[in-house]
Amino acid sequence: MSRYAEKALQGNQLAGARLIRLLEEGDPEGIEGLKILYPHTGKAYVLGITGPPGAGKSTLVDRIIGEFRGRGMKVGVIAIDPSSPFTGGAILGDRIRMQRHATDDGVFVRSMATRGHLGGLSKATGEAALVLDAMGYDVILIETVGVGQDEVEVVDLAHTTAVVSLPGMGDDIQAMKAGILEIGEVFIVNKADKPGADEVVKQLTVMLEMRHYKPGDWRPRVLRTVAVNSEGISELVEAFLAHRQHLQESGTLADRKEKRELHFFRELVKEMAYERIFGALGGNGVLAALLEDLKARKIDPYSAAEKLVGGLSCHL
Amino acid sequence: MSRYAEKALQGNQLAGARLIRLLEEGDPEGIEGLKILYPHTGKAYVLGITGPPGAGKSTLVDRIIGEFRGRGMKVGVIAIDPSSPFTGGAILGDRIRMQRHATDDGVFVRSMATRGHLGGLSKATGEAALVLDAMGYDVILIETVGVGQDEVEVVDLAHTTAVVSLPGMGDDIQAMKAGILEIGEVFIVNKADKPGADEVVKQLTVMLEMRHYKPGDWRPRVLRTVAVNSEGISELVEAFLAHRQHLQESGTLADRKEKRELHFFRELVKEMAYERIFGALGGNGVLAALLEDLKARKIDPYSAAEKLVGGLSCHL
Repeated sequence: MSRYAEKALQGNQLAGARLIRLLEEGDPEGIEGLKILYPHTGKAYVLGITGPPGAGKSTLVDRIIGEFRGRGMKVGVIAIDPSSPFTGGAILGDRIRMQRHATDDGVFVRSMATRGHLGGLSKATGEAALVLDAMGYDVILIETVGVGQDEVEVVDLAHTTAVVSLPGMGDDIQAMKAGILEIGEVFIVNKADKPGADEVVKQLTVMLEMRHYKPGDWRPRVLRTVAVNSEGISELVEAFLAHRQHLQESGTLADRKEKRELHFFRELVKEMAYERIFGALGGNGVLAALLEDLKARKIDPYSAAEKLVGGLSCHL
Repeated sequence: MSRYAEKALQGNQLAGARLIRLLEEGDPEGIEGLKILYPHTGKAYVLGITGPPGAGKSTLVDRIIGEFRGRGMKVGVIAIDPSSPFTGGAILGDRIRMQRHATDDGVFVRSMATRGHLGGLSKATGEAALVLDAMGYDVILIETVGVGQDEVEVVDLAHTTAVVSLPGMGDDIQAMKAGILEIGEVFIVNKADKPGADEVVKQLTVMLEMRHYKPGDWRPRVLRTVAVNSEGISELVEAFLAHRQHLQESGTLADRKEKRELHFFRELVKEMAYERIFGALGGNGVLAALLEDLKARKIDPYSAAEKLVGGLSCHL
């Protein structure tokens, strides 16, 4: 039983924040809380926004929040920052720009560090999204920095993935091409009042035309914004909602959710099985002896792992 | 018994390439091969080179290879490219610049895709590095693109991590600051003949001065290169070797190796335990029923995982 779960279900932000923290730390109380919340999840629309540093994502996110709020939707934000292996802390930096929503009960922003999560960032982000979902946020916006593999996995959680670029990114778009570019459903050229915007729009459009589409597939859209002036934001949110509707009508939404939930479950099983094996063997000398042999290169890690796992039996 | 392991041990590049491919695909023959190779590993010096797209890493890597070769050292290169979730293929692009080493038996370049590895990129890269190590390469150079979390994990494999930047990167260095910047031991300002080089060197130096150092800690170095003209390459390789010597003399090298090997072993155990649980339960109806309940939200994933893992017993 969790002190925080009931309160979080009523929308209490402090309780929600505490629960997310407990989950990040791998605290059993966090997991007990999430068990209570779980039946209340599965309703929120999850939107991933990614792109390189300097693309103006924070301002953009701020404006998107405003637009959703204007439409009467509650917004939870998970901001993922590259974090220091030394300090372990998340950079708050330009999050401050989102402060104008700080007094709005319909907005809840959580920053997450990219390091130190038991089971990885993608698991921690998934858990935080479940908490926000159960708390009643209509939209969960996941903002990531960069175009690395880990970011790709995080946006895998999203129903809609938006990729932000900006004028003058020619080469970087080439570099993005084979990565996150191919998983985006909405492409945003921000700072579109700057020279070179037409070029980036054209490059993106050409690349998107090279994708293979089956009949009924979503056709990615390229949109221009000038986030600092709130230009193009309404059209952008329209595009997000159009994509959500497409997912619902095509049945893809249900498929995505199921696939994601199964993946999450499998990761949990791995983690727990590992804990159990090491917990069970920690007491006797077998594990210690095996680790010694490993250190001395008397055994290779594959054979050592096979030895451990070979002693497992399952009865259900 | 692996057809390829014995040949790879003799330095046969085709056999080595085949073995790496089998490991990437999670083929049991790859693992059998690696068991044979394992006792012959642990000798190579592993150098990680990372930085954003456009920093000229490929040319730089080409020149570094040349410099190591001039010192009589054999060099294995693992080039990690962001790959397409659609094609699954690695981009070869500017790898072609390394072609001048193609006829040199002392150089072996493997490109790896960032997706589709059983157990993740960091595991796949670690296995490829073991193969190159056993094949007798003195230096294993791991080149990554980007500054994401996944890249950070890949360079965790390295004994020395070099971070490449270039003039005009002001903002991006700020963005890198909290991430990979803090794990670098050698910082390279490439294209140092371009305007703005002094500024980047200064910014890096200031940031590095803000780190906390204990007595005996390695002091990161900032070096200028103009890779296209081979300028600064010899000094750069001197810095790498100085760092290696520092690791050896301080005993840090042995610690790092041990930590990395233990981490690898734990990941293997997780993976294998998972395979075993699902394999054992796939035959009876328990797993299928549990997955159905999960789909219907009759059970939460934590309770479902606990149920599965609770049926495990370990006897060794």
